[in-house]
Amino acid sequence: MREVYVLGVGMIKFGRYPDKDVPQLGADAAVLALKDAGMSIKDVEMFVCGNLFQANAMNAQRILQQIGQTGIPALNVANACATGSTAFREAYIGVASGMYDVTLAVGVEQMGKMGLLGGGARSGGESVEGVLGSGLMPAIFGQAGVEHMRKYGTTAEQFAKVAVKNHKHSVHNPLSQYRVEVDLNAVVKGRMVAYPNTLYMCCPTGDGAAAAILVSAEKAKQFTTKPIKVACSILTSDPYTERDLTMPDVNTLTKNAAKQAYEKAGLGPKDLDLVELHDCFATAELLHYENLGLCGEGEAGRMIDEGRTTIGGDIPVNASGGLLSKGHPLGATGVANIYEVVTHLRGQAGGRQVEGAKAGMAHVIGLGSACTIHILTA
Amino acid sequence: MREVYVLGVGMIKFGRYPDKDVPQLGADAAVLALKDAGMSIKDVEMFVCGNLFQANAMNAQRILQQIGQTGIPALNVANACATGSTAFREAYIGVASGMYDVTLAVGVEQMGKMGLLGGGARSGGESVEGVLGSGLMPAIFGQAGVEHMRKYGTTAEQFAKVAVKNHKHSVHNPLSQYRVEVDLNAVVKGRMVAYPNTLYMCCPTGDGAAAAILVSAEKAKQFTTKPIKVACSILTSDPYTERDLTMPDVNTLTKNAAKQAYEKAGLGPKDLDLVELHDCFATAELLHYENLGLCGEGEAGRMIDEGRTTIGGDIPVNASGGLLSKGHPLGATGVANIYEVVTHLRGQAGGRQVEGAKAGMAHVIGLGSACTIHILTA
Repeated sequence: MREVYVLGVGMIKFGRYPDKDVPQLGADAAVLALKDAGMSIKDVEMFVCGNLFQANAMNAQRILQQIGQTGIPALNVANACATGSTAFREAYIGVASGMYDVTLAVGVEQMGKMGLLGGGARSGGESVEGVLGSGLMPAIFGQAGVEHMRKYGTTAEQFAKVAVKNHKHSVHNPLSQYRVEVDLNAVVKGRMVAYPNTLYMCCPTGDGAAAAILVSAEKAKQFTTKPIKVACSILTSDPYTERDLTMPDVNTLTKNAAKQAYEKAGLGPKDLDLVELHDCFATAELLHYENLGLCGEGEAGRMIDEGRTTIGGDIPVNASGGLLSKGHPLGATGVANIYEVVTHLRGQAGGRQVEGAKAGMAHVIGLGSACTIHILTA
Repeated sequence: MREVYVLGVGMIKFGRYPDKDVPQLGADAAVLALKDAGMSIKDVEMFVCGNLFQANAMNAQRILQQIGQTGIPALNVANACATGSTAFREAYIGVASGMYDVTLAVGVEQMGKMGLLGGGARSGGESVEGVLGSGLMPAIFGQAGVEHMRKYGTTAEQFAKVAVKNHKHSVHNPLSQYRVEVDLNAVVKGRMVAYPNTLYMCCPTGDGAAAAILVSAEKAKQFTTKPIKVACSILTSDPYTERDLTMPDVNTLTKNAAKQAYEKAGLGPKDLDLVELHDCFATAELLHYENLGLCGEGEAGRMIDEGRTTIGGDIPVNASGGLLSKGHPLGATGVANIYEVVTHLRGQAGGRQVEGAKAGMAHVIGLGSACTIHILTA
């Protein structure tokens, strides 16, 4: 296995693009990543596209039709919300294997006018909601929050503080779908979606794309003096567990992945300077503090109270604004949070910069099930 | 890059399974491959599922729910008709990289009551036909045949002989969807679909699944004395060419892939003992004789006349019955033709055995575009 580096990243502002299609959005992000890497499409030797709703529509090849048809291996992957990060991982393995020196990963999604929370999804594809049951996502993450309240005395206000923090972070991210601060009162009194998550505590739907160029050590040296290393690339699926409805696989899935990630990277939670984690709902963020080992079991509520995960705290979480503000175009998210970590490790995150960041984690879960964790180091 | 071996293969009879779903069909094939390898799901370290129409439905994970949830990395890939072989290739890279010693690839499709040739496809997913235009496939391959007739004097009868040969082969394949001999007269006088391809010269639709277990050299030695080596695993996309409608990318795509395959494997067409190629239409088979270098440009008509590609000839093509008889459940095909080559290299192909086969090729094209070529050796 060879070492793999991220040489370039690109991302379009998440939001609504009714006049574009999936290949166009993906091409926009790919071109930004190529430009960032200082490369041409002719340098790319393999391309993996992650798109969920139109996973069978040959979007990898349709993106190449726009950015350059060089005849390279191109494939399309899907893995629920972990679609983009799974594409990134296959591109990573392509370089790690020694087969390629330069690979491209794109994550892209167009959710269009799909209702908030995926309700009434009509994507032209069989939807994840269709498979899992409409409205199941808010219910799962609501119940997981309630269970945490029951076990550890966590309060609805503590969960609400996640939304306050992430919306506050988003103001400094020009690529975030929403960039509006909200105060605790507004979050708590917002329309209830699935207790304890109110409207501001649920990620919006939208369109978006992000891309990354992965390279070998030798190639990285030719193009930059500050390569970002992929210290680990982990993908897990649901292990067999005796589940009950109130505690779905989100916890075990992430715990297993985190254990593997720290082991592989040779780093622990204390070595991380920032974490981009899968806050599809505010409740999920607190659960993942514990699942990722950022704090002990039952301590997540206190962690948010103490501001430790706000920018300026000891381990900023979702400096980008998180899925709650930045948006969650499903297939794009996995690459977008790698984009965010890379941007901080380079010191290019502007007003939201986590100062002196040397190591960061990008975490995604897809129910159904898939969990990816990438740890990146400067 | 490490050497990679196929330790186990499994395939269900292609046909109609209205009472099963995609995960069940995939699980059936996976269990057969595990049994063939002498392994348990606990031995598998990574799993790639190829399914086209429900590419976003988390079928990899749903198959694991049936055969064993061990928490391994699982992902879903799609690449038009090359979906299954692309899944096989990602599983191959997983082992070649040194990351895993044992990986599983499944190709599976349920086309159900979709009309012949994909017309009126209603899969619950955005269909390839939907993307490419309904009825385009027969037109493309019909026109490509007509162009060959114009350039080289190939006759409609010569194309028809492909159907006669493949249907003849299929009689000896218990897993083939159709196992009926047809004579030249019946083929030529069959209902015209898109000149020169009549009904018998077009592959049927159906349901099916195939699976393969890929392993490292060390692991292969532990389990078998007769490992089958993957001598090359090639994937190409459409290079930019000045196309006209009569000569679509099928030719260039395959020619590029073949050039890379022979180079990588260190073998030439004359070293092959059998070829399973993508005869979605009879015209395609003759074109691919030339694209794969089995004969010179314009010589394919004579090649079929001389019976060189019939079992017993110097380079049997589609001993399985080919897509024309065996069926073409899109996502399954790529793994199914690897199954066929492996079966011959092991000397286990019964009545259709290509005697003494030491090297074989599995070729698939997906319009849209993707071409895979795997050369396997005993």
